[in-house]
Amino acid sequence: MLTEKIKKKLKNIVGSKGFIDTPEDLSAYSYDAFVKEATPQLVLLPESTADVAAIMAIADQEGIPVTARGAGTNISGASIPVNKGIVLSLTRMDQILEVSTPNRYCIVQPGVVNGDLQACLAKEGFFYPPDPGSYMVSTIGGNVAQNAGGPRCLKYGVTVDYVLSMEVVLASGEVIRFGSRNVKDVTGYRLSSLFCGSEGTLGIVTEITLRVVPLPEATRTILAVYNDLDDTADTVADIIGSGILPAALELMDKTVVNAVEDSAHIGLPRHAEGLLLIEVDGVEEAVEKEMRTIVEKAKAHGAQEVIEARTAAERDDVWTARRSAYGVFARLAPDCIVEDATVPVSHVPDMIRHIRQIADRYQLRIGILAHAGDGNMHPLISTDTNDKEEWQRVEAASREIFELAMSYHGTLSGEHGIGLAKTDYLPMAIDDATQAFMTRIKQCVDPKGILNPGKFV
Amino acid sequence: MLTEKIKKKLKNIVGSKGFIDTPEDLSAYSYDAFVKEATPQLVLLPESTADVAAIMAIADQEGIPVTARGAGTNISGASIPVNKGIVLSLTRMDQILEVSTPNRYCIVQPGVVNGDLQACLAKEGFFYPPDPGSYMVSTIGGNVAQNAGGPRCLKYGVTVDYVLSMEVVLASGEVIRFGSRNVKDVTGYRLSSLFCGSEGTLGIVTEITLRVVPLPEATRTILAVYNDLDDTADTVADIIGSGILPAALELMDKTVVNAVEDSAHIGLPRHAEGLLLIEVDGVEEAVEKEMRTIVEKAKAHGAQEVIEARTAAERDDVWTARRSAYGVFARLAPDCIVEDATVPVSHVPDMIRHIRQIADRYQLRIGILAHAGDGNMHPLISTDTNDKEEWQRVEAASREIFELAMSYHGTLSGEHGIGLAKTDYLPMAIDDATQAFMTRIKQCVDPKGILNPGKFV
Ligand SMILES: Cc1cc2nc3c(=O)[nH]c(=O)nc-3n(C[C@H](O)[C@H](O)[C@H](O)COP(=O)(O)OP(=O)(O)OC[C@H]3O[C@@H](n4cnc5c(N)ncnc54)[C@H](O)[C@@H]3O)c2cc1C
Ligand SMILES: Cc1cc2nc3c(=O)[nH]c(=O)nc-3n(C[C@H](O)[C@H](O)[C@H](O)COP(=O)(O)OP(=O)(O)OC[C@H]3O[C@@H](n4cnc5c(N)ncnc54)[C@H](O)[C@@H]3O)c2cc1C
Repeated sequence: MLTEKIKKKLKNIVGSKGFIDTPEDLSAYSYDAFVKEATPQLVLLPESTADVAAIMAIADQEGIPVTARGAGTNISGASIPVNKGIVLSLTRMDQILEVSTPNRYCIVQPGVVNGDLQACLAKEGFFYPPDPGSYMVSTIGGNVAQNAGGPRCLKYGVTVDYVLSMEVVLASGEVIRFGSRNVKDVTGYRLSSLFCGSEGTLGIVTEITLRVVPLPEATRTILAVYNDLDDTADTVADIIGSGILPAALELMDKTVVNAVEDSAHIGLPRHAEGLLLIEVDGVEEAVEKEMRTIVEKAKAHGAQEVIEARTAAERDDVWTARRSAYGVFARLAPDCIVEDATVPVSHVPDMIRHIRQIADRYQLRIGILAHAGDGNMHPLISTDTNDKEEWQRVEAASREIFELAMSYHGTLSGEHGIGLAKTDYLPMAIDDATQAFMTRIKQCVDPKGILNPGKFV
Repeated sequence: MLTEKIKKKLKNIVGSKGFIDTPEDLSAYSYDAFVKEATPQLVLLPESTADVAAIMAIADQEGIPVTARGAGTNISGASIPVNKGIVLSLTRMDQILEVSTPNRYCIVQPGVVNGDLQACLAKEGFFYPPDPGSYMVSTIGGNVAQNAGGPRCLKYGVTVDYVLSMEVVLASGEVIRFGSRNVKDVTGYRLSSLFCGSEGTLGIVTEITLRVVPLPEATRTILAVYNDLDDTADTVADIIGSGILPAALELMDKTVVNAVEDSAHIGLPRHAEGLLLIEVDGVEEAVEKEMRTIVEKAKAHGAQEVIEARTAAERDDVWTARRSAYGVFARLAPDCIVEDATVPVSHVPDMIRHIRQIADRYQLRIGILAHAGDGNMHPLISTDTNDKEEWQRVEAASREIFELAMSYHGTLSGEHGIGLAKTDYLPMAIDDATQAFMTRIKQCVDPKGILNPGKFV
């Protein structure tokens, strides 16, 4: 129980700077980028692994729920403290502890912002590939706990592919460390992958060793503009199916393009029914050649126009616009639901056709945004959660989208996670025996169920 | 207990073709490529997941140890049934169930031989990167259970990076499935990574969905020949440190080169103190350019000669020779211990210097073979396990090699696993709390401890 006495003990650990218990301040930790809210009883901001371990030992003994939090940018309600208790914000543990480019790793605390790490690595000619749209604010701890993706993950892989080693504080307050600085490591169970993507339900990540990669020598970025959204989608399946692997292959439909252009004013083609943002990187000569093939394919599928971002500034504009898409679309209505259904890429054209039919049938405004190259669809549904009748249509439409994805051997979530948003849909993707197994693992690791309770497991 | 009645039940499941209980036939399942042996009481060769599930249900009820086995090529004693009981050979479950190159995945049964999968994929212009030296005989199930590596894993990553989805039969006989056909998938815990590398201690893998990759357009392969082993090692650290990522970067010292040449007769330079086998692949133009830089670096570090494999046949010769290295070296003495210590690549030169000093000090014949580009060292120790005095020196030398690796933040095993071979060394790499946590996971998943008992956990 979170009594005054326990609060005092906790305050002794983090000091008054790391202790938040006034209602107005607590409310800042009651929401993330999903549509639900719950206010914690207490927010703690530890500064070290020892702080976290001491907090967890008390929470475990007292049976107090603890929900870890990075920047709170997740879109699935994963960081909402539905059972109240403590929100543990890792933002003060924000040190980049070591960068070794000769050995291609770096060691960071969980509160390091992805974009800050990128800036630090860029100085040495390296980068860390996973680049969620939120990278200028989201934390490595949150990225790891969500196994975050991003546009570049098409070519480079997602967060889990870069986690070499982790330090984790368990529910009990015990500290464990596994993995090493080596890509090849088969010493004991591969636990980093279990914790990566576990949404704070298995432990608090307090240190991460990440693999880093040299910056490519050359990058080319184009926009392919279509009069027809089906043609746009066909191009995607054709490019990937033919064996090319761009660094990024993003798709937007007309509603998204216009919402973005309204805010960004960079001259996106408002008339386009479909737009592809394609980036290729690597050795100069290879990039030239791959881009030539891509442009040929785009034209063969009916692209009206291919516009190249010729300068670094133009390239930044295009990407800033792309990254703003969710945010600006969200502002069109009181609320916005971002779906995240993902399918093998050959089914992207069918998915897009069906999603448009679903939008028509349920009379909903659904914008289509996708990390299309890896089949990761983000239909954006404008809505007002207070409009009960419309909300029912949103839920029915969402369910149809997921059923469709399942019929193509897809998955409920490619990168945003289950959180609160998709718990109800889990039985579509995970059978009873497997769900029971996940629950068994959860109970084994966190027997009292104090870590981020009320979530998918 | 494995009574006659239980044996009969088990025979009913697999039929007489899948049932082995005569001493002479059982002995074929008593060893792998490590130096220890133990004969099982029974060998079963199931043909389906249902067979495996039925076998496990009985084994669980009766408390009978079950050790899975693929081709038995592992070098750590991982498949030796130290507590007797059943050896479950998956070799009859050898079907390639589906290949989808447009979506870049394939679905296989565990008994599929890695080389057979490669041949099947090559017909469609694709490949599956993990290529253990044993690939012509080892099975995908064994590769997955060991999280196998190989030369190509330097550029392409190891087995776990290719596992999209798995079907696993638990100790209880329950069947679980997780993951999907999608690279991006954050629906529930990422269990595939937990089972991958678990050496048959958590479940029996009965189906695997793997990511596959288009064959590169061009490949170039060279041998760089050195008069000095330190120069050889320095080249490795320099190439990787400077940001180039060859497909493979293998190192052999003089003793290994000569052992290989004695058997392969392909004209390897016997006088070389050190030899690098370097392969680059990708788009033609990029390959040219990267190889140029590599050759420059090799020469700058004192390479006497750079020999190019100009034809596919020459390339095959070189690789066959490399792959034979462990086998031919093993034949120099009654036994051969392959160590597998792995370090961040900048420490490869120091590791090699020290290993040679250790060999001198303990008066042992140690050949140096390494997937050097990822710091994965394979010192080959010629010995005779019956010579007790020498064996003590082998053990002391091994321990020093591991201590050295640990001092460089390396790991006990890069790819061969812990098995029986390295259990004693585990405390060097894994602290008590983490080891206890692994044991807790093992007990949760396999409460009676029937899966491959007596191994690292
Ligand atoms: C505009 C926008 C664009 C986005 N684009 C993408 C995208 O392209 N790809 C993508 O994958 N996501 C994207 N997201 C979602 C989100 O940014 C990511 O999931 C991100 O990884 C969350 O990081 P965070 O620091 O905000 O974590 P939070 O939202 O604070 O937390 C996320 C989860 O991680 C847990 N957690 C946080 N820190 C720790 C820790 N140290 N230890 C244990 N658990 C912890 C929390 O309990 C919670 O369950 C986007 C979000 C927005 C708003
Ligand atoms: C000459 C030679 C070269 C080698 N080169 C390499 C190399 O370059 N890289 C490398 O990583 N390894 C290498 N190895 C080691 C070995 O080949 C690999 O570990 C390989 O993955 C083992 O596969 P297998 O089918 O022989 O498995 P086995 O040896 O039969 O079994 C290995 C382990 O997997 C378990 N297992 C097998 N099948 C299953 C299943 N279906 N479900 C659950 N558990 C299962 C077993 O219980 C055991 O613990 C080499 C070995 C030799 C002899």
